[in-house]
Amino acid sequence: MREDLLIPARHGMAVRLAYGDTVTIVNESGTQVVDTWAFCADDLSHAMSMEHSRVENGRLCAREGGQYVTDRREPILYVTQDASPGVHDTIMAACDPQRYINLGCKEPHRSCSCNLHEAMIAIECPIAKTPQPLNLFMNIPIGEDMTLIQGSPLGKPGDFVTLRALRDCIVAFSACPQDITPINGHSPSAVPLIIERGNVGAGAH
Amino acid sequence: MREDLLIPARHGMAVRLAYGDTVTIVNESGTQVVDTWAFCADDLSHAMSMEHSRVENGRLCAREGGQYVTDRREPILYVTQDASPGVHDTIMAACDPQRYINLGCKEPHRSCSCNLHEAMIAIECPIAKTPQPLNLFMNIPIGEDMTLIQGSPLGKPGDFVTLRALRDCIVAFSACPQDITPINGHSPSAVPLIIERGNVGAGAH
Repeated sequence: MREDLLIPARHGMAVRLAYGDTVTIVNESGTQVVDTWAFCADDLSHAMSMEHSRVENGRLCAREGGQYVTDRREPILYVTQDASPGVHDTIMAACDPQRYINLGCKEPHRSCSCNLHEAMIAIECPIAKTPQPLNLFMNIPIGEDMTLIQGSPLGKPGDFVTLRALRDCIVAFSACPQDITPINGHSPSAVPLIIERGNVGAGAH
Repeated sequence: MREDLLIPARHGMAVRLAYGDTVTIVNESGTQVVDTWAFCADDLSHAMSMEHSRVENGRLCAREGGQYVTDRREPILYVTQDASPGVHDTIMAACDPQRYINLGCKEPHRSCSCNLHEAMIAIECPIAKTPQPLNLFMNIPIGEDMTLIQGSPLGKPGDFVTLRALRDCIVAFSACPQDITPINGHSPSAVPLIIERGNVGAGAH
């Protein structure tokens, strides 16, 4: 069963996935970062963890065929397909109101952190904190001497990533509203999602 | 007022610091990683955050003269002096019992995560989660294609880092007991701490 959804530009969305369901995140513009989180359905305090995933993968982000784990090192999302350059950030915190104040914004600015909490509240699953997101399509080159560069996106329109739920979970997304730094090519855009349900076992691993 | 403490090899310790106090962490062996956390004294759920510090510093770790911030992007620890190669990890999760099971250990193994919780309980400040630590002296080179290498330490005996509290806080440490990977030179050792109190304003910034 296929379900097509659209995250409006600069907004968020949370979706319940059962074990085996997949979600495809489409980078329609080719320049849109999508902050992504996952929470176990039976315990929202048990969440996907970038710091544990980095250790388990021996890599900053997982590749096609790799997986993300929780803060208890339990598998939660499997990378079924990565039709992009495979460059995703796992080390930059989600943007939040204070980030935009620090960047000099005088007016309130939408943020990935608020998008996450809005999206979780919308499905009646409020959470206390904003975990480190999986920043899909975000390009943060690491320079010599450990410097972090706010890179422009490397992808092309229509790139996508498909993630499969390795347990019942809630997956939340934010179409990143950042338009001060170049990480979204200065033009935040909407993000199509494709959910496919009921494929348990069809290549789940 | 100076206070000399010693974290036994493979164990943890938590210390209360007032604004302006400093703690010096000594790498006596030259090969010892020290996982470091900080929690605001008035709200233990408000903690030093590596993901927010990376964004604010534009760098994987802070240099001498730089600072670490909390998950609300508020300053918490200032790097007064870094008498080491300046290579510290902020992207690898603290080791925990599951990590050692995954590494093939058949017997229980001490871990940085348990050391943190033991140390916080010892001063009657239990916490719910293990934040991403500042892994002082830990060398994790990032290879091409985003791979993470468990490097051997780069320092020499007697290297040290001095951190100054930019607010009243609890700072916790773990003398990392990892002896399966080479990150501690395969030989976990004790860690001297030097606390200096009452120097408010003496070059705090």
